[in-house]
Amino acid sequence: MTNVQELQRIVGGDWVTTKREQIESYLMDEVYVAVRPQPSNDVVVVKPANTEEISKIMKLANREKIPVYPRGGGTGLLGGAVPTQDGIVLSLERLDRVEEVDKDNLMVVVQAGVTLGDLLKAVEDEDLLFPPHPGDEGAQVGGMVACNAGGTRAVKYGVVRNYVKGLEVVLPTGEILNMGGKLLKNNTGLDLMHLLIDSEGILGIITKVIFRLYPRFAGIATLVVSWDDRHAAIRTVPKILQSGVIPLAMEYVERDVIEISAEHLGLKWPAAKGKAHLIVIVSGSSEDDVYSQCQQISDVCQEHGAVDTLIAERKEEQAEILKMRSEIYTPLKSRMADGLDITVPPANVGKVFDAIEEIAKRFGVTVHTFGHAADGNLHPSIMMDAVEKGVFKEVKKEIYRAAADLGGVVSGEHGVGKARLGEFDLYVDAKSKELMRGMKRLFDPNNILNPGTAIM
Amino acid sequence: MTNVQELQRIVGGDWVTTKREQIESYLMDEVYVAVRPQPSNDVVVVKPANTEEISKIMKLANREKIPVYPRGGGTGLLGGAVPTQDGIVLSLERLDRVEEVDKDNLMVVVQAGVTLGDLLKAVEDEDLLFPPHPGDEGAQVGGMVACNAGGTRAVKYGVVRNYVKGLEVVLPTGEILNMGGKLLKNNTGLDLMHLLIDSEGILGIITKVIFRLYPRFAGIATLVVSWDDRHAAIRTVPKILQSGVIPLAMEYVERDVIEISAEHLGLKWPAAKGKAHLIVIVSGSSEDDVYSQCQQISDVCQEHGAVDTLIAERKEEQAEILKMRSEIYTPLKSRMADGLDITVPPANVGKVFDAIEEIAKRFGVTVHTFGHAADGNLHPSIMMDAVEKGVFKEVKKEIYRAAADLGGVVSGEHGVGKARLGEFDLYVDAKSKELMRGMKRLFDPNNILNPGTAIM
Repeated sequence: MTNVQELQRIVGGDWVTTKREQIESYLMDEVYVAVRPQPSNDVVVVKPANTEEISKIMKLANREKIPVYPRGGGTGLLGGAVPTQDGIVLSLERLDRVEEVDKDNLMVVVQAGVTLGDLLKAVEDEDLLFPPHPGDEGAQVGGMVACNAGGTRAVKYGVVRNYVKGLEVVLPTGEILNMGGKLLKNNTGLDLMHLLIDSEGILGIITKVIFRLYPRFAGIATLVVSWDDRHAAIRTVPKILQSGVIPLAMEYVERDVIEISAEHLGLKWPAAKGKAHLIVIVSGSSEDDVYSQCQQISDVCQEHGAVDTLIAERKEEQAEILKMRSEIYTPLKSRMADGLDITVPPANVGKVFDAIEEIAKRFGVTVHTFGHAADGNLHPSIMMDAVEKGVFKEVKKEIYRAAADLGGVVSGEHGVGKARLGEFDLYVDAKSKELMRGMKRLFDPNNILNPGTAIM
Repeated sequence: MTNVQELQRIVGGDWVTTKREQIESYLMDEVYVAVRPQPSNDVVVVKPANTEEISKIMKLANREKIPVYPRGGGTGLLGGAVPTQDGIVLSLERLDRVEEVDKDNLMVVVQAGVTLGDLLKAVEDEDLLFPPHPGDEGAQVGGMVACNAGGTRAVKYGVVRNYVKGLEVVLPTGEILNMGGKLLKNNTGLDLMHLLIDSEGILGIITKVIFRLYPRFAGIATLVVSWDDRHAAIRTVPKILQSGVIPLAMEYVERDVIEISAEHLGLKWPAAKGKAHLIVIVSGSSEDDVYSQCQQISDVCQEHGAVDTLIAERKEEQAEILKMRSEIYTPLKSRMADGLDITVPPANVGKVFDAIEEIAKRFGVTVHTFGHAADGNLHPSIMMDAVEKGVFKEVKKEIYRAAADLGGVVSGEHGVGKARLGEFDLYVDAKSKELMRGMKRLFDPNNILNPGTAIM
């Protein structure tokens, strides 16, 4: 690449790399095996120190029409960060400063390369709370916003979008835009900020984020409720919500899958009875409030056929339960072909479970399903036997069709990345695609920012 | 207009009107006197029955390049619904059906012409809750989404945007698009739905909305807390939030203004002491929970200099307090030149109040200010004496400058409409405007939908 010297002039010689062994880890993200895109062979990794350097890099790239792949923590599941064309990988890792935890405004200002783990720590140190927890704590906040991350704790206050109040963005043409601010209300024209959220790095590079925070909850408890029957468990989810309690999280797991995770971690799944479980996390304004919510949930569950309810109040016990849920992928991953991310209206979760079970049985393949029950967001994991039998694509297509027939979409929280090209084309209508592509041209006339994503 | 016959063929003869006396009420909205746009003289009012008819109207208008002004309840404050060019006023009033209150999914499906009042009633009849309350209950839901309405109850769960889960939209070119659904998570490409929210009728006509609902709260209480000093009152707002209680609403009012409203309504402002008041609305999962939150707020307020706290638990008493706050405009309106809508970081509310007071004093004019304290969203009402003295524009400009200097914006919840042309141009940067205008061209190549808004 002829522009290496110019890149070195912008960021300094130490922060431009073309050596294969040093760039290896920048060529792939956590994308599933069977849908892994092919990274390019001629990539420069650039590590700018600040927004101004990023602006200069984009001006250079735009002038020379060089593809640029912004990279955060690399924890995406769909190859969104994989450089599929020769060009620049622009890593945000040096923009790693928590600029301010603003207690009076209940906001935090963070550079894009701050990890979720560091964000949580900075906020907790000030006795405040960033409620969502979208999985891997190595994720960087820029990526979390670019992908509108979801995760388990979206029931009460929603996904990452709901917390974003301000963004600093470098456009593909190099301009630096400030959107929003420490503002809880803002109706000043078309909302560019909300367009950038979930734009998966094709409209601009997010360099700074202002998130809304909440006070730390006085109490948090975790319930594990058990049923013998899947449908009884899932049917109870809206009953809990209707009863007036809105938990932080309601996760559905089945014994066979969660016990694999527990064993892998050297832990024990605490529920002795039942084979279908809800993990419910409750937060409240006082310990009494949390206790009475737990009681109410327990009552509703028993009315609806629960065979056992277990309330974990100790921090370590709650952390263990969450860990078993959070790492449910880990022991499966080496045998996983693809992890889907369908979302249906919450009341259709039971039906889509049945449909998936029927599809798996019909094709004689293994699909492990678990997910965010109250959000209607499920992750059917298609295992490698489907690939080995040559039916992987068909199985996936049928699961998608079942979700679509039940009013659902192919992505709830993972996005489309570079691995969902076919799905995006099939399940998004032609006019919407035309508008999305028109917006991409408007922001990025030379198509240099993250080219190759499914949206394009 | 030559196309009246074709419009009659689409919607039926009874639903097309050109008679001046019948269209009079479709020419203006609630826009403030001093910034009122001039309505056009040659307008046809069309009242389609459904989405398909709207699609046909838009195809005709697009072909013939006729301006179309979508109209909801006409409760907007900035002339967004005023037809400033000759063309069609497209009223959504016949799309007035609540299609479904879906208890299992906690969602409601409503046509765009359903009023806020009818929405609230339908939802309450099913023992559920639509938390936000953006003022006038005659507002229609299509307009509420097109303007991303805010209002008092945005502290806990946010503005209308946060509740929108699905939209049906007719594009200026006539295509019907469905965005989202009964879905709590959806990351399938660029988010057109969030772009349509707050697009003020320039990108498409919203014909149907799916809102997320919440369970009805077990208890609601309203506190009126009094201070002798404005700053002490305002400084307490973040202290309440930091203590771990998140109320539904926190409104700041001063005695002189709220007593005008009380007198006008034949009511009595219940606080005997103090001149600076917070109205705090608290909701909880049980009556005990509500009570303990009230106690906590009361304690925090007393620690921070409150001279009196009054807790209203009876429904009628709470309704009266809200009514005095909600109708605070009414007795002022005939003497009001303009009602601003600045939003600053919440911790700067006290500073912006002082700045406004200083500006009013310096120009020798009256500005009444009140607003959503916890949201940082204030409504300085510039009275007619500023117009009579010939300093209205200068006063407004200085207030805007003060807000901008404190990290604020010129619109928190009212939008830009047709009355904020100058402000929009001054306070939105050139590149953002270029992108917004590019998106407008993409959606509406012939610029026929709501031409004349400040965004364009």
